[in-house]
Amino acid sequence: MKIVLDAMGGDYGPSVTVQGGIEAIKDYGINIIFTGDSDSIKKELEKYHYPKENVTIVHCDEQINNDDSPVTAIRRKKNSSMVVGLNLVKEKKADAIISAGNTGALLAGGLFILGRIKGIDRPALAPVFPTTNGASILIDGGANVDCKPRNFLEFGIMGDIYAKKILGINRPKVAIVNIGIEEGKGNSVTKEAYKLCQTGEFNFIGNVEARDIPSGYADVVIADGFTGNIILKITEGIASTIFDELKDMFTKNILRKLAALILKPGLKEFKEKLDYSEYGGAPFLGVQGNLIKAHGSSDAKAIKNAIRQAKNFVENNVLEGITREIMKLEEGKFE
Amino acid sequence: MKIVLDAMGGDYGPSVTVQGGIEAIKDYGINIIFTGDSDSIKKELEKYHYPKENVTIVHCDEQINNDDSPVTAIRRKKNSSMVVGLNLVKEKKADAIISAGNTGALLAGGLFILGRIKGIDRPALAPVFPTTNGASILIDGGANVDCKPRNFLEFGIMGDIYAKKILGINRPKVAIVNIGIEEGKGNSVTKEAYKLCQTGEFNFIGNVEARDIPSGYADVVIADGFTGNIILKITEGIASTIFDELKDMFTKNILRKLAALILKPGLKEFKEKLDYSEYGGAPFLGVQGNLIKAHGSSDAKAIKNAIRQAKNFVENNVLEGITREIMKLEEGKFE
Repeated sequence: MKIVLDAMGGDYGPSVTVQGGIEAIKDYGINIIFTGDSDSIKKELEKYHYPKENVTIVHCDEQINNDDSPVTAIRRKKNSSMVVGLNLVKEKKADAIISAGNTGALLAGGLFILGRIKGIDRPALAPVFPTTNGASILIDGGANVDCKPRNFLEFGIMGDIYAKKILGINRPKVAIVNIGIEEGKGNSVTKEAYKLCQTGEFNFIGNVEARDIPSGYADVVIADGFTGNIILKITEGIASTIFDELKDMFTKNILRKLAALILKPGLKEFKEKLDYSEYGGAPFLGVQGNLIKAHGSSDAKAIKNAIRQAKNFVENNVLEGITREIMKLEEGKFE
Repeated sequence: MKIVLDAMGGDYGPSVTVQGGIEAIKDYGINIIFTGDSDSIKKELEKYHYPKENVTIVHCDEQINNDDSPVTAIRRKKNSSMVVGLNLVKEKKADAIISAGNTGALLAGGLFILGRIKGIDRPALAPVFPTTNGASILIDGGANVDCKPRNFLEFGIMGDIYAKKILGINRPKVAIVNIGIEEGKGNSVTKEAYKLCQTGEFNFIGNVEARDIPSGYADVVIADGFTGNIILKITEGIASTIFDELKDMFTKNILRKLAALILKPGLKEFKEKLDYSEYGGAPFLGVQGNLIKAHGSSDAKAIKNAIRQAKNFVENNVLEGITREIMKLEEGKFE
């Protein structure tokens, strides 16, 4: 299996991506194609011992930055590590691509270079959301800020397959985020989407209120990309605020510092449980290729986990699963 | 000052509302008009010593329940504690009303009985959101699931006055919740709303990302009611999940239990900081009357705080302030 890693993407560039890639080669025995500045990549590679035959470098003399305009960057920077990587997947020279670079550019690149799966109107980002009893999938995490009801049905189909094939959930519970659980609640889009999702060939359990997401009420949580993105970001904000406040509290006097010392392993374990980087990145589902967006601030572990996730996508034929289910839906139209 | 308290509203009814009302009379010297079943109210009143002249009971033989359809309930149950209470405000026999009852019915009652302030298209719920450096106002907290850009401008005007007059913030920072801070980010509604809010006579600071809400980046956070409601509910869910997990962690072994004991006062203080009931209820801004929605699960303290909040609304002429600002906006149209 060959996986492209955009070596230039992310806040830390090759120093982190190369380390993550090498660790993944050692642990999973896959092949990595690094795209990016070959001198920088080679310099980093020198730090490690690894099976040389598992590494390919494709030199690119351009790079897409975080402040580049997404569509323009994809169109103009033809020799960037991201565009070259996407083309390798398109030309079937690689099975998947991971990038921690400019999110907008990566999504635009997914749409323009890889293209949509026939029947999918809106490919969507599907990050994993840690819950008290494991993890849920949130789809759409931010790719489509304005959605039609039909998009919710597509999100349900794609999320269902992801949850089955990657999270190993037998019959995933799929729900729409809404302001109440009853049918008829919500805005004009979610009301229509509810009816449409009832026709979907997945275990649609209705609406989920946002307060029940963290306890894992649903395995697949459907939302438009605006709402989905706000759910992710407020969660990040609340969790980090609570941790900051706890830290302040724990260091207020010597006795509390002692207590905090006792609780340290527990707190660490707890923080890890909430750590999304354990789950890799967010796949961009609905495009014709395995494309994983890793968080911009990914460390080597997060990169490695995103590679593991890409490997799981390839091995479990997620792409074929989505293509098949969407085809069924399209055929159903003419029955 | 006379404040109506819907004695039958909320999960616990008169046992809690009467206690909260009596405590408010003692602390704030106001007059309370209890609407509801007079036998039940009298039975509760017997438990307390209080200045009799500050209490009026208006008997109502109907009650709106949580499963009643909002609009139908307001139209049909003319002699319910909620409808009678709203009419007392409409007829200027009372200065404000507080209810912990059916939210939808209360909002419908506010619209139909009190009516909108001229120039306000969509009255909105404005709960207070605890932040690390104090509190912010979220508007709309859930009254209007589908909003037009113009509504965001109204929310900004109303939230600004609320923050100035009640939270005592000199020049409140007003922002739209969005998926990025740059102008041009967001869905079709927030993009237009951004432009419109720039014309508003308040300190519009642009967009706020959801992750920055808990740290108090903005004093007034504008959102459509769907997004606002989801922000409130996910916050509730995340906070309670984190507390549950901490509790589990703290009780895992005897040493940790000891540590938790040391931290107990700090944790209590911390929980109180996050406790929205400290701030009373959520005013329904934009209707012609002071209307406060208390949380359904309010205890006596929360009811008392909602009454204090209503008193502040009356004393600080929030209603007149909003009416004046909206009039300016309306006049501006013809300049």
